[in-house]
Amino acid sequence: MASVGVIGASGYAGALAASLLHRHPHFELAYATARAEAGRRLSDVHPRTRVDLVLEELDLERHGAVDAAVVAYPHGAAAPTVAALRERGMRVVDLSADFRLRDLGTYEQWYGEHGAPGLLDEGVYGLPELHRDAIRDADLVANPGCYPTAAVLALAPLARAGLIADVVIDAKSGVSGAGRAATETTHFVSADENLSPYKVEGHRHTPEIEQELAALGAGVRITFVPHLAPLAQGELDSCYVTAARDTGDEELEELFAAAYADEPFVELRTGPPGVLDVRDTNFCRLSVHWDPRARRIMVFSAIDNLWKGAASQAVQNLNLMFGRDEAEGLPR
Amino acid sequence: MASVGVIGASGYAGALAASLLHRHPHFELAYATARAEAGRRLSDVHPRTRVDLVLEELDLERHGAVDAAVVAYPHGAAAPTVAALRERGMRVVDLSADFRLRDLGTYEQWYGEHGAPGLLDEGVYGLPELHRDAIRDADLVANPGCYPTAAVLALAPLARAGLIADVVIDAKSGVSGAGRAATETTHFVSADENLSPYKVEGHRHTPEIEQELAALGAGVRITFVPHLAPLAQGELDSCYVTAARDTGDEELEELFAAAYADEPFVELRTGPPGVLDVRDTNFCRLSVHWDPRARRIMVFSAIDNLWKGAASQAVQNLNLMFGRDEAEGLPR
Amino acid sequence: MASVGVIGASGYAGALAASLLHRHPHFELAYATARAEAGRRLSDVHPRTRVDLVLEELDLERHGAVDAAVVAYPHGAAAPTVAALRERGMRVVDLSADFRLRDLGTYEQWYGEHGAPGLLDEGVYGLPELHRDAIRDADLVANPGCYPTAAVLALAPLARAGLIADVVIDAKSGVSGAGRAATETTHFVSADENLSPYKVEGHRHTPEIEQELAALGAGVRITFVPHLAPLAQGELDSCYVTAARDTGDEELEELFAAAYADEPFVELRTGPPGVLDVRDTNFCRLSVHWDPRARRIMVFSAIDNLWKGAASQAVQNLNLMFGRDEAEGLPR
Amino acid sequence: MASVGVIGASGYAGALAASLLHRHPHFELAYATARAEAGRRLSDVHPRTRVDLVLEELDLERHGAVDAAVVAYPHGAAAPTVAALRERGMRVVDLSADFRLRDLGTYEQWYGEHGAPGLLDEGVYGLPELHRDAIRDADLVANPGCYPTAAVLALAPLARAGLIADVVIDAKSGVSGAGRAATETTHFVSADENLSPYKVEGHRHTPEIEQELAALGAGVRITFVPHLAPLAQGELDSCYVTAARDTGDEELEELFAAAYADEPFVELRTGPPGVLDVRDTNFCRLSVHWDPRARRIMVFSAIDNLWKGAASQAVQNLNLMFGRDEAEGLPR
Repeated sequence: MASVGVIGASGYAGALAASLLHRHPHFELAYATARAEAGRRLSDVHPRTRVDLVLEELDLERHGAVDAAVVAYPHGAAAPTVAALRERGMRVVDLSADFRLRDLGTYEQWYGEHGAPGLLDEGVYGLPELHRDAIRDADLVANPGCYPTAAVLALAPLARAGLIADVVIDAKSGVSGAGRAATETTHFVSADENLSPYKVEGHRHTPEIEQELAALGAGVRITFVPHLAPLAQGELDSCYVTAARDTGDEELEELFAAAYADEPFVELRTGPPGVLDVRDTNFCRLSVHWDPRARRIMVFSAIDNLWKGAASQAVQNLNLMFGRDEAEGLPR
Repeated sequence: MASVGVIGASGYAGALAASLLHRHPHFELAYATARAEAGRRLSDVHPRTRVDLVLEELDLERHGAVDAAVVAYPHGAAAPTVAALRERGMRVVDLSADFRLRDLGTYEQWYGEHGAPGLLDEGVYGLPELHRDAIRDADLVANPGCYPTAAVLALAPLARAGLIADVVIDAKSGVSGAGRAATETTHFVSADENLSPYKVEGHRHTPEIEQELAALGAGVRITFVPHLAPLAQGELDSCYVTAARDTGDEELEELFAAAYADEPFVELRTGPPGVLDVRDTNFCRLSVHWDPRARRIMVFSAIDNLWKGAASQAVQNLNLMFGRDEAEGLPR
Repeated sequence: MASVGVIGASGYAGALAASLLHRHPHFELAYATARAEAGRRLSDVHPRTRVDLVLEELDLERHGAVDAAVVAYPHGAAAPTVAALRERGMRVVDLSADFRLRDLGTYEQWYGEHGAPGLLDEGVYGLPELHRDAIRDADLVANPGCYPTAAVLALAPLARAGLIADVVIDAKSGVSGAGRAATETTHFVSADENLSPYKVEGHRHTPEIEQELAALGAGVRITFVPHLAPLAQGELDSCYVTAARDTGDEELEELFAAAYADEPFVELRTGPPGVLDVRDTNFCRLSVHWDPRARRIMVFSAIDNLWKGAASQAVQNLNLMFGRDEAEGLPR
Repeated sequence: MASVGVIGASGYAGALAASLLHRHPHFELAYATARAEAGRRLSDVHPRTRVDLVLEELDLERHGAVDAAVVAYPHGAAAPTVAALRERGMRVVDLSADFRLRDLGTYEQWYGEHGAPGLLDEGVYGLPELHRDAIRDADLVANPGCYPTAAVLALAPLARAGLIADVVIDAKSGVSGAGRAATETTHFVSADENLSPYKVEGHRHTPEIEQELAALGAGVRITFVPHLAPLAQGELDSCYVTAARDTGDEELEELFAAAYADEPFVELRTGPPGVLDVRDTNFCRLSVHWDPRARRIMVFSAIDNLWKGAASQAVQNLNLMFGRDEAEGLPR
């Protein structure tokens, strides 16, 4: 048994991570911290977790002395906390963007000053389907953003095959993606029966997707536009790829099968996925199609933004880091 | 007062057309027909219409003797009925696709045999913002599809300006777009909390959009993918245009202002629209953006698929055909 | 033309009242005030209103000099503002509870200290179906609460007939009933796919319903429990009446027809209403049923909480106060 | 390991039962049958099950030769199939109403002719919290209806204590409760943003609730009215009890604690439950309240209609029948 804490368990992703760890056969949920909600039971703040642990204020002395932590702080706030945990020798899965980008300049351009730039090199991008071996050896795993998880899984086989000349990613997310803060945007009356693009001037997940595509050989500038959709959980990335050369359904399906046939959490389908198909699971469900009229490749990628897009992928990473079966504790 | 009938008033679009005509200051709703629901009051089938008229079976003798009709039949079924009404001298707004495509070959490729090919030349594509004068003189108006309405309004200023090298349209529609038939797709439990692409192998609205863009000078093959979203009414077309040359927000906004500043039913906004903004209205709300990183133009176009995408646009067309103020009877 | 202002137009009910007045053939919307949102256009805060008026901070000098005002302030905050407007001779429809209860002690028990007790006698309970004549002559109309509107209309014919021995009201409301404040309760992720009772220890609409029933001869203590349902607008009051004597469907339907057959905004149906039937309207739709097994009367009453439950009923009251047709400016 | 089949796995409850059995540590899912969908994989019909078993047409020879079956047929159709399985010695959990009512006359009055009246005596009402010992020994368990599950758990402690003089049950259910058939009622556009009572003339779950209350000493005629709410899964029974004598919160909470403190799947709370709290679980969450003004007891009872209201309760019953831990295979 390894002992794991969750730092920042009042948000949706942190609470779900705590819930998954609490039920995990190998990990023990050592503690869960929160700021405003400290002193309340996690099960009172998030009834569906059914984790009766009392949320504590972060105390690095005590909380820095377990085997690992999942950090679920906002971008910027995460880095110094992660650094403090790493100093104490803890292994960390960080849900923020703070250690996802390899290039400091790119980070600062999109997020502002970095709180622990010296640790950037240590971070491993926690997408097991691409970086499994590195994750196994990592002490600091940067859990991918929800949109990049779906998008990079959708595009990786095409990037490796040199098929990507250009990409548009039209993404749709449920409202939990906007976080637990009560705002005009997340008000039921605003979101219900509505559908709207947001951050059209540039969403911070853009450089993350470009970094991973570039590493696979596709050095493109992408257009990525997220939309808010009237559902609680679920995310669909619709990827439109101008093909570097003509291809067809058969080649594309073979490419994807070669990439993912043995992956425990990638499901290939011939018809397009719906986000409900993967609700409350760690699965990414993909379909790929050739549009012969416009000579374009289309990939549709569905995940649950709180699961594969955040908390369950963190557990998948922890499993790898601790030498366990990658799927342990994750319902299949 | 002109006397107008609605043929096929049991579906969502036909019922709404009947409701709008019933309250219209200039038109009189002469009758509403239906097949399976004949004999029931429209207000029993569609309570929100509050139109107590009893639905009748179509009787060309009687129903062919008023000033005009809105025909709300499925593709294929509409053509022969429209032909019969035209023979009796009635003016027709047809909600089906049967008279939207100028090219018979294209029609047959996407829809199969045409039931009244001799009438194809007579049909005027009923998008008032593009074809206002022709509609005024028309006896047969082909009311545009919902997706093409939003997409063509989004892209027309760019097409005219020669800015379109390539287009991807990622469209999202509420469930009423799938029609009133009770199917697995329209079942609440299937659609709720779900989001899914459909017709990825090619949706029939594709040639309609291409026809209108070509007429404006943009002879491109588009990629158009619709998605089903968990809301009742509303449609968003997100259009991603590879620009033929560099441009910028200022030029784009000027282009759109020049095209639409005087349009009574087009609303330009600097921020992206939500479908709720145009719910239950004849408005199309647009925003246009330049993505300097990827050198792409993005246009977001929101309509209510049952209103501007069908029934209220039919009334807008009728207003033009009968020399009325285009906005008469349409709430603003 | 009479000139009417809306005081507190940033909330849902105030904004809708402004929108209805803006389009009203007889009233002119003189101004709309707001606190935090002052300086913004109403159409930016509430796009669906399409009222481009700039929201102003309340200035009693200026804003107290028109013919009438709709006050949409929270309970407690309304009374002093209403008093100030009345001093200046303005006629007022107040959406708060401050002038609904005739008995000061009852008010103070449920709401705390009253800000203008001297005005209590002046207030007329603004349910036109019960108090039409008094409203015509009133200078201060207390617009009923949403739940009482539906409940009192449901129960009035039974109360008058001496049929009520006991009542349980199980009410369900859409999330707009909880107001525009962004809270954990109104967060999409909390409300979506959820359904929950609230204020089970006693909701403040209880004494209001009891007051109106008592005035009709039914001096009962009711059990009233509201529930929050996952929809934006709409309210259903399910009323279960232990009958003072046996009755039957025929007598009940006659009672209701006698009470409401000529009412412009009450719709009697034999089958139970759905809240969607009355969405975006001033209608209250009712059905009444005799349960012979349990010897109980059931009445189901559906309204739109923002319309008949607030803003459109305020316009209905203004119409009466200014001698207009009661339905003027209200879509039927 | 015991071998269990699911007969009628194309509906929501049958599919979920198959999914739970497929993952159960002690039971082996031997087969799943369906009529129209035979030949398709269960995972194609119900993607979320992720059970790749091919649905088979029922073949009593083969399918009657395993240890047990869950039968998920409609009322009336279930009885003869259950009888055929019992003849072959199989143990059965029947999800239909066919063996829930002990009294044949009552059954026939509400459901029509019974297909296997000789088996009525054998059926044990499968509410473990009331009939645990009998279920352990039973060969035929009649799984309770969804509404009765929530209602009887809500009322049992009061019935035993002689506190019930009269009861109104106002129940609300998600759309999955209406079954998988695509109808006008289950169409997204009909159910979305709607809320409506149904079967107000008498729902068939009424006698089932009365039977169980009578067995506990409360021989009352109840008023039970279900409502359709716009969510997929979840059910709330709001129970309003005219008290036989005065009581108070303290006594009521003690009564409920005495009844349920050791129950693995009943959760007592001081605040009212929301249906989302119990989504996708076998829990029933209850709160009880004394209304001193109206001298009434209120109990709110939330379950997931497909889980505790059907499939997971069936597994709970199978666990008891096969001597396993009652909670085995059911996520807690």
